[in-house]
Amino acid sequence: MTKPELPEINHREISDSKLFRIEKLALTFSNGVQRVYERVLGGAVGAVLIVALRDDGKVLLIREYACGTHSYELGLPKGRLEAGESILAGASRELREETGFAARQLREITSLTLAPGYMVHRTHVVLARDLYPSPLPGDEPEPIEVLPWSMDDLLSLAMREDCSEGRSLAALYLVRDYLQKEIAADE
Amino acid sequence: MTKPELPEINHREISDSKLFRIEKLALTFSNGVQRVYERVLGGAVGAVLIVALRDDGKVLLIREYACGTHSYELGLPKGRLEAGESILAGASRELREETGFAARQLREITSLTLAPGYMVHRTHVVLARDLYPSPLPGDEPEPIEVLPWSMDDLLSLAMREDCSEGRSLAALYLVRDYLQKEIAADE
Repeated sequence: MTKPELPEINHREISDSKLFRIEKLALTFSNGVQRVYERVLGGAVGAVLIVALRDDGKVLLIREYACGTHSYELGLPKGRLEAGESILAGASRELREETGFAARQLREITSLTLAPGYMVHRTHVVLARDLYPSPLPGDEPEPIEVLPWSMDDLLSLAMREDCSEGRSLAALYLVRDYLQKEIAADE
Repeated sequence: MTKPELPEINHREISDSKLFRIEKLALTFSNGVQRVYERVLGGAVGAVLIVALRDDGKVLLIREYACGTHSYELGLPKGRLEAGESILAGASRELREETGFAARQLREITSLTLAPGYMVHRTHVVLARDLYPSPLPGDEPEPIEVLPWSMDDLLSLAMREDCSEGRSLAALYLVRDYLQKEIAADE
């Protein structure tokens, strides 16, 4: 894996946003205590995160530029659902756009929040199996690198500096747990 | 576990924020493609998330009101670092405030991001062991419920509707992996 060259920051400013809005809530708790809380509103439709498992037990990770940390990050394929799009249709589209593979089997496993204390955002975790090549053009600024990673070695992945996203790591671990239970139930 | 009564929302409005700011970045990628990205700026000093392990193998979860999802959520004790506070000092303070326990052993295991694509936020994961009662008053609007949970049963926790936070689940799983490696190395 060669180290990709970071994009150059040409300009930065604090500004109003098209993507994010902050909502202020005045609350009264059941014990009478009053507080004002703030939360970040994201897209109304949510997002999908795909654990795409190959027959050899490796999962497809992608490496792409992450603006929040201004670094290249390893993580699971993911993206926002489009208006009116079902969870599995969105997962299929994002998987094809970001990895070039489609899946004959797609199943929603659970959904995760980022920081429920102050973010509304919710991500649906989808397990994709029985993969076959079927790329779709995406809107990425540069090609995405796809990296298969063994599900047996999640700790070294979690300890990598360039793989830091909590929801990707949670999805990998809980799907591994889920699959072990599935295998045990079949036996 | 009884179901707590949700706080009442007295007022809500979209507004400027004291806690969150949105930054817009104009970028040129190494292939020449130009894009404008947005990211959410959080506190400058980061946050801590504590995996507090009792001698019986149970971890201390807390249940508190989460404004982002307007629900009561189970998760790990956590909080923002204060200015000038070290990671371990912040972890110790938050653990005492939220669970009433202090730890004779504290170790930073790794750090996690929420959504590196569009959030700057970073959370340090701290393993706390050798616990003893030592409460500190916190600034919570109502008492926090503490719930010990077996580290051997993380999948049923991950599948609960009221335990959705990706970074809490990631921290639990990776610390379990880390401890298994530690035990194997000792033998």
